[in-house]
Amino acid sequence: MATLPPDPFEPGGMVRFGARLRDGEITAEAATAAYLARIEILDSRLGAYEYVAAEAALAAARDIDRQLAGGEDHGPLMGVPVALKDLIAIEGMPTTAGSNVDVADVIGVEGTFVKALRRAGCVILGKLKTVEFARGAAGVNRVRGTPWNPWDSGVHRIPGGSSSGSAVAMAAGLSAFTIGTDTGGSVRGPAAFCGVFGLKTTIGTWSIDGIFPNSPTFDTIGPLTRSAADAACVYSALTGRPVPPPPSLAGLRLGKPLNHFFDSLDGDVERCTATAIAALEGDAEIVPIEVPEVAEREEILRVICATECVAAFGRDSFIANQDIMDPLTVARTAPGLDVPAERYIRVLNRQRALCRIVGEGMGDLDGWITPTTCMVAPTVAEVNDIEAGLALEAKLGLNTHPASFFGLCATTTPVNALGSALPVGLQIVCAGGEDAKALSIARALEDLFGLPPKPRLDGFL
Amino acid sequence: MATLPPDPFEPGGMVRFGARLRDGEITAEAATAAYLARIEILDSRLGAYEYVAAEAALAAARDIDRQLAGGEDHGPLMGVPVALKDLIAIEGMPTTAGSNVDVADVIGVEGTFVKALRRAGCVILGKLKTVEFARGAAGVNRVRGTPWNPWDSGVHRIPGGSSSGSAVAMAAGLSAFTIGTDTGGSVRGPAAFCGVFGLKTTIGTWSIDGIFPNSPTFDTIGPLTRSAADAACVYSALTGRPVPPPPSLAGLRLGKPLNHFFDSLDGDVERCTATAIAALEGDAEIVPIEVPEVAEREEILRVICATECVAAFGRDSFIANQDIMDPLTVARTAPGLDVPAERYIRVLNRQRALCRIVGEGMGDLDGWITPTTCMVAPTVAEVNDIEAGLALEAKLGLNTHPASFFGLCATTTPVNALGSALPVGLQIVCAGGEDAKALSIARALEDLFGLPPKPRLDGFL
Repeated sequence: MATLPPDPFEPGGMVRFGARLRDGEITAEAATAAYLARIEILDSRLGAYEYVAAEAALAAARDIDRQLAGGEDHGPLMGVPVALKDLIAIEGMPTTAGSNVDVADVIGVEGTFVKALRRAGCVILGKLKTVEFARGAAGVNRVRGTPWNPWDSGVHRIPGGSSSGSAVAMAAGLSAFTIGTDTGGSVRGPAAFCGVFGLKTTIGTWSIDGIFPNSPTFDTIGPLTRSAADAACVYSALTGRPVPPPPSLAGLRLGKPLNHFFDSLDGDVERCTATAIAALEGDAEIVPIEVPEVAEREEILRVICATECVAAFGRDSFIANQDIMDPLTVARTAPGLDVPAERYIRVLNRQRALCRIVGEGMGDLDGWITPTTCMVAPTVAEVNDIEAGLALEAKLGLNTHPASFFGLCATTTPVNALGSALPVGLQIVCAGGEDAKALSIARALEDLFGLPPKPRLDGFL
Repeated sequence: MATLPPDPFEPGGMVRFGARLRDGEITAEAATAAYLARIEILDSRLGAYEYVAAEAALAAARDIDRQLAGGEDHGPLMGVPVALKDLIAIEGMPTTAGSNVDVADVIGVEGTFVKALRRAGCVILGKLKTVEFARGAAGVNRVRGTPWNPWDSGVHRIPGGSSSGSAVAMAAGLSAFTIGTDTGGSVRGPAAFCGVFGLKTTIGTWSIDGIFPNSPTFDTIGPLTRSAADAACVYSALTGRPVPPPPSLAGLRLGKPLNHFFDSLDGDVERCTATAIAALEGDAEIVPIEVPEVAEREEILRVICATECVAAFGRDSFIANQDIMDPLTVARTAPGLDVPAERYIRVLNRQRALCRIVGEGMGDLDGWITPTTCMVAPTVAEVNDIEAGLALEAKLGLNTHPASFFGLCATTTPVNALGSALPVGLQIVCAGGEDAKALSIARALEDLFGLPPKPRLDGFL
């Protein structure tokens, strides 16, 4: 059995790595080689990667090392290995969007965000599994494979989706950080199910060109990281916006929704969330609120998201390719075939109005606090048939859709240390554009609860 | 016969009025009273106004005079009378949107722009005729009346539309300036037909809340003024962005499209435009260009604009009210009833791509130079039946649609002094966001060609 090299970003994350890199204690090449070795050893069972660009990554890492030796420093992400959801075009790598349908022309060439990663000095390891066209929250992909949730080597549990591989690779230490996309929860859900930190950015934070347009009205790019501190590092490096230091909990006012968000929790989620909120309540003010607008999320999902996905293909092309798609993709997208434009526009107008209403309703709150998902990861077997899959999908987005559909941003922090064997995510939702604030609140949570536990990986060796 | 009081903004426009107001040579009340008297005398025949708020305007003007006397000065628009297209909600006045259908709930309450006018100290005289729901370029309105083009008191010529009343009121000196909206040419067309200056702003320059949503993707607010200098004054006062002084013509590079824009000109437009461009060519560089993207304007118009207008009503409400609408409104809007959302989204995506393509194609040009319309104002009789009306509509937008559909901004300057009895407009089109530059180029044209002639109004007394 090969020996698993340690994760070069443990302990200490990006800040410590950056210091060691500049002190000559480690090189970008060594860090890249360590991740490639971990992928080689673990990923045949985990199945997080769709494509590994080993040679290109090592060459890029050596180039970074040369630049640093020559005094050229691109900042905190320099030499940091990253892997991206395979919904995103990267020059020199194939893009499947989780499908056997060829959608290269829909995605286009490498876009602004990937170029920004390169400019920041990141080393791109490869591409990570996704639900087909990002259209599913369980992380199941019947046509290109479903990654294993690393928290259970005995039973195949869902990784969450659609950024399934991004969460699994992050949880198993197969990259320094990963990039997913979040349209209705596709960063937060898998981050919660796999026990890593996730950021759903405000719409428009980063341009989404060069990415499969699942639902351009709501599509966002977001990092999955080992900590809120690392996410803050990624966010500020790639936006130029600083993340303030963690605020004092005593000054925080967080809304706890009385409706919807706490209605369908399983025991583990209920217990960990209640313990987390109780711990905060000593200092922060937890304010009971109502978010009646969540009742409209189903209509938004059905009319806007499904329709925009059909439009990405063109109706005829979608219909022609249905036979080689995952049946769940078809079941969830086909409602978009027959929406009249007039209805689409009216729902879009209503959605924009809801953004204003919910934004104003945030008032003097710093954010909302909710569980990220209402359950811990079920097994793939439980949801494998289409009917069970659709029923699960309806439950999985309950708590993540609102931030997406109302123009907000959100983080998810693992809190399973508070009482669950499987990961549980605690979600902080902030007003649109307040990503830096959400991250600084998440850093305060991290200071309070400590860094999350890691899954045991020996069962995957 | 009553004596027509002189236009208090002649000569010298806003700058001279502002100086006289502050020197105590005129009051806001006197200026307002002069316009109200001119409206009283001229507008029974011209029909530019839908609603005159005489008492409210005089009260507001007296208030402005008191503020100024007390040392309170809100800047260059203080005490300046304005009238607005009746597509725009103004507190205390009815809104018809040019229709007998009640659309108050679609329009909502007074919006951001009107509030900004009030804050700047403008005196609101009333509301101006519009084509029904702003859906027509001729300015003809079969349900609420078509204003007369003031350049011909003998024959009823079209005023242009949809901001028909805004152009007529401006040309006849029935307000210091007027406000229209431009979705595909609705400021520029009537400004050109009535011989006044018009600015089509870049999408998003001013928020369009409180305005009938004809096509929110393209709807913009724009001023009609006696001069480019006055338009610059309005633009900078209401955006906070300065308009640079007129550039030297010698440094200008203007693209003259070889395709489309010069294809269907009548003799007057051909002659005035050629003379104007020849006059510029001595100094400025006129660069032959191609704009092949104009071929796609028909699809954009049919799919996006018509569909968004139907959506503003809701399909059922549109159908239920068809019988009391202008038949031309119905004919031009009904194609939006049956567009599938997937097609709408695809056309919208293509339109966004065209914005990028055309924007990049602007390259190192300062702008394009074209005629604003391809003809001088025909008579209402020529276009009164629906078939002739539809045929005219297809011609009227030829040269104004491109700036709208490709995310640009544009001005129209009257150049009929160069060889036409009826007004002719010369259009300068600049890149999106370059409104201040477009205005400064227009000021250079004004310096070169002088202020435009005025229509003789004695036939309307």
